[in-house]
Amino acid sequence: MVYRTTSLRLDRDQALRSRILDCAMQRVAEGGFASLAMQALAEDVGVATGSLYRHFRSKGELAAEVFALASRREVAALATAFAAPGMPGERLAQGILQFAARAWHSRQLAFALIAEPVEPEVDEQRLFYREAYADLFSGLLEEGVRSGDFQVEQLRLVATCLVGAIAESLVGPLSPPARVAREAGGAVPGFAETSRNLITFCLRAVGAKGY
Amino acid sequence: MVYRTTSLRLDRDQALRSRILDCAMQRVAEGGFASLAMQALAEDVGVATGSLYRHFRSKGELAAEVFALASRREVAALATAFAAPGMPGERLAQGILQFAARAWHSRQLAFALIAEPVEPEVDEQRLFYREAYADLFSGLLEEGVRSGDFQVEQLRLVATCLVGAIAESLVGPLSPPARVAREAGGAVPGFAETSRNLITFCLRAVGAKGY
Repeated sequence: MVYRTTSLRLDRDQALRSRILDCAMQRVAEGGFASLAMQALAEDVGVATGSLYRHFRSKGELAAEVFALASRREVAALATAFAAPGMPGERLAQGILQFAARAWHSRQLAFALIAEPVEPEVDEQRLFYREAYADLFSGLLEEGVRSGDFQVEQLRLVATCLVGAIAESLVGPLSPPARVAREAGGAVPGFAETSRNLITFCLRAVGAKGY
Repeated sequence: MVYRTTSLRLDRDQALRSRILDCAMQRVAEGGFASLAMQALAEDVGVATGSLYRHFRSKGELAAEVFALASRREVAALATAFAAPGMPGERLAQGILQFAARAWHSRQLAFALIAEPVEPEVDEQRLFYREAYADLFSGLLEEGVRSGDFQVEQLRLVATCLVGAIAESLVGPLSPPARVAREAGGAVPGFAETSRNLITFCLRAVGAKGY
C-alpha cells in the first residue's frame, strides 16, 4: 500500500515534470531562452513557482534539460536520415536538407539551440551535442571514404568544418534567416535556393563525385 | 597657453588610453575576456580603478574596444593576403593558411575573439566583424567566379559557410586546438595537417579547379 501510494506519486511527479518541460520548450521555441522566466513558466503550467524548483534546481538546469530534449530530437532525426538506404552522397544531401528544413521553419528554436547567449549549463550541453553531430558526420564520411564516394583525409576535421558551415549558414548571425530578421526582409534568398547551395557546398567539400 | 595645456593633456589622455588598451589586450590574450577584471587591469596599468572608468564607461565597453582592435588586425591581415598577386585559388589558400597560423599560435586570443561567452557589447562587435570577414570572402569569390576559377552560385551563402567552417575548425569547441585543451593532448593532428585539410575543404567547396 505504501509502495502503491509512492508509485502513484512518482507517476504524478513524472507527469508534472513532463508538463513543465513541454511548457518550457514552447516558451523557448517562441522567444528563445531569454523568455524562459521561472515565474511566467509557473503560470503557464498552473503551479506555484516553488513547484518548479522541486523539479529543477535552477533556471540553468531547466534550460539545459530543454536544450537536451530538443537536441536529442534533432540528432535522432539526422541519424535516421544518414542511416537511410542509398549512396553516402545522397544520404548526406538528404540529411542536410532535412536539418535545414527543420532549422528554417523553427528559426527561433534553432537559434536558441545553436547561438543564443545562455547559462553555462546550456553551453556544456551545446558542446556535448556538437560532438554528437560531428560523430554522425564522421560516421557517414567514413562510410563514404570506404566506398570511394568521398575523398577525405582527416575525417574529424572535415566533420567539424561541416558542422560549422551548416550551423553558420542556417542559424549563425550571418545566415539568411538571421539577415531576414535583422534587415526586415531585404533581398535575402529563400529556403530552396539556400539549401540547394548549402548541399552543393558540403558535397563538393567532401570530394563527392559529380558535384 | 590655455590651448597648449589642453593639447598636452589630450596627448597624455590618449597615451594613457592606449596603455590601458595594450594591457587589456595582454590580459585577454593570456586568459580571455574572463580575466579582464577592472581592478587587476588598473594594477597592471599602474593607475587607480577610477581612471579606467574615465576612459571606458564599463567593462563591456572596454572589452568591445579590445575586441575591435584585435579584430581589425585580423581582418586587415586577411584583406592583405586576399589582395596579393596570384590566382584566386592561391590567394584563398594563402589567406586561410595565414589566418589559421595566427589563430593556432594565439589560441587563447582567437578563442576569446570568436567563441568565449562575453558581454553583449562584444557580441555586437562579433556580428560586425563576422560580416567583415564574410565581405572579404565574398569579394574574392566574386573575382574567382568572374575569372572562371570558382564555381559558386550564391556568393554570400558560400562566404558564410566558409566563415563557419574556418571558425569551427580553428577555434570552435570541436576544433583540434580546443580538443587538445580539453583532452590534455590525445592524438590530435597538428597545424600542418589541419591547415592543409582545411584549405582542401574550402577550395573544393567553392569548386576550385584541381582540388
